[in-house]
Amino acid sequence: MTHTVLSSATKEVVIGFDRPFVMIGERINPTGRKLLAEEMKNGDFSRVEADALAQVAAGAHMLDVNAGIPLADEPALLAAAVQLVQSVTDVPLSIDSSIIEALQAGLAVYQGKPLVNSVTGEDEVMERVLPLVARHGAAVVAISNDETGISEDPDVRFDVAKRIVQRAADHGIPAADVVVDPLVMPIGAMRFAGQQVFHLLRRLKDELKVNTTCGASNVSFGLPNRNHVTSTFLAMAISNGMTSAILNPLHEEVKTAVMAADVLAGNDQDCFAWIRANREPQAEGAGRERRGGRRRG
Amino acid sequence: MTHTVLSSATKEVVIGFDRPFVMIGERINPTGRKLLAEEMKNGDFSRVEADALAQVAAGAHMLDVNAGIPLADEPALLAAAVQLVQSVTDVPLSIDSSIIEALQAGLAVYQGKPLVNSVTGEDEVMERVLPLVARHGAAVVAISNDETGISEDPDVRFDVAKRIVQRAADHGIPAADVVVDPLVMPIGAMRFAGQQVFHLLRRLKDELKVNTTCGASNVSFGLPNRNHVTSTFLAMAISNGMTSAILNPLHEEVKTAVMAADVLAGNDQDCFAWIRANREPQAEGAGRERRGGRRRG
Repeated sequence: MTHTVLSSATKEVVIGFDRPFVMIGERINPTGRKLLAEEMKNGDFSRVEADALAQVAAGAHMLDVNAGIPLADEPALLAAAVQLVQSVTDVPLSIDSSIIEALQAGLAVYQGKPLVNSVTGEDEVMERVLPLVARHGAAVVAISNDETGISEDPDVRFDVAKRIVQRAADHGIPAADVVVDPLVMPIGAMRFAGQQVFHLLRRLKDELKVNTTCGASNVSFGLPNRNHVTSTFLAMAISNGMTSAILNPLHEEVKTAVMAADVLAGNDQDCFAWIRANREPQAEGAGRERRGGRRRG
Repeated sequence: MTHTVLSSATKEVVIGFDRPFVMIGERINPTGRKLLAEEMKNGDFSRVEADALAQVAAGAHMLDVNAGIPLADEPALLAAAVQLVQSVTDVPLSIDSSIIEALQAGLAVYQGKPLVNSVTGEDEVMERVLPLVARHGAAVVAISNDETGISEDPDVRFDVAKRIVQRAADHGIPAADVVVDPLVMPIGAMRFAGQQVFHLLRRLKDELKVNTTCGASNVSFGLPNRNHVTSTFLAMAISNGMTSAILNPLHEEVKTAVMAADVLAGNDQDCFAWIRANREPQAEGAGRERRGGRRRG
């Protein structure tokens, strides 16, 4: 069984086919969040801290940290954000940037074994990112596109993923430390985007035996009632072998679907987490009073 | 592509891998419904009528009709129920009984091509039910157990299903008119019940190329927040090839999950049904008044 082990200074998280699905909180990302971008640029990380705490409270097992702000000093911001988040939570992080210097800065201050987000199948990108990942003993998200772009053919994307896994091995990174992102497109624009991803997830599990992740909310872009589309997608993806995703755990539908999918995939032993999360309020604390006083029936 | 075509006197429903998932309403069934059983036994079918109308209004594409009441004249009751339901709705029916005389009575009065629910892989049952199905040109639900019971091994269940399909062919019933029920067990009691069913659904689709159905709510038996477990199961089952289920369309979570799964499976073209079901209220009817009067912003 493939296990990708990530860690903070004090906590380990394992991604694997026989483990509960790993929810990676997506919120610490200034892309499309003007206010957060402005604040981070000015050195105000209060919202980053609040987002970190809220996502972990909502059940995130890991947090993605991105500081991609145009015209800002991304390496310095990403390092500061990583340090701040590690000081207030104990979950492992995904260090997220398309700029090699920012990844370097984030890795330099990180305590534990993080996920580096991301490398693509482009030769130049692999040759810059993989040595850095290897040097830090990190794991890496491998996005299944290359110089020719994103293929609509899932089998071409499989070949790209396979090539990244092989190249990672050349750099001493084991396949268990490569988490493939099959690339999830908006279903509203591409009718067969779901079928393509499910097919690819299955091949990645059965043939390449690697863990997988994705930016889940992308699938529902442009549609009404987005959270239900995203959460249903996650359940379907999990049953095709997806083992983690970058998502918003504050969306109740999303968290509920992931937990139910864990039950149905056989990865919530004795339905323990499900039952604990869904037990009747009277079983929690008000129990004694109710039993003593307002008896029903 | 396998298409199972069912009909009433005026309406056709097609079950298929390239079609929206078919929801078969489960409510008209006195099992575990004491009041309904009592009423039906006394010839009062008002609740049957109300359940039929409510389920169709909620989106059921077909209705299952069962009249299994201990010590009652099941053939007469089932025939009466079938006639009543056909007089108030136009959806095709699934005629549901384990008693051959009841199936005969229901088929005798049915208008159109129904689903006969069900035959098992037991020799004696096949030899009683299949000739009846063939004579009426009906389709049939094939439950994947036999004289030895229900195997926990999905590959054994696959072999039972295959045997029923072959026996049906001997009676002139095409594979497209056999809808296999892979048998869904309570996940709270059997940790790998989901994985087993998903594996079996995939083989039934890829190798036997038959449509499938199941009693969906069984999966969540005994668990809290049942509807979310059932609805998540349905999404996962659909992505593994399940094409219909007997379920309660009045449960909003169930209906929403099925509709979202249709989108993600590529079977809701242009997301038309999803967008229609989820559009903002102002787009529906109050539009003209709002445009003329209370303009926003």
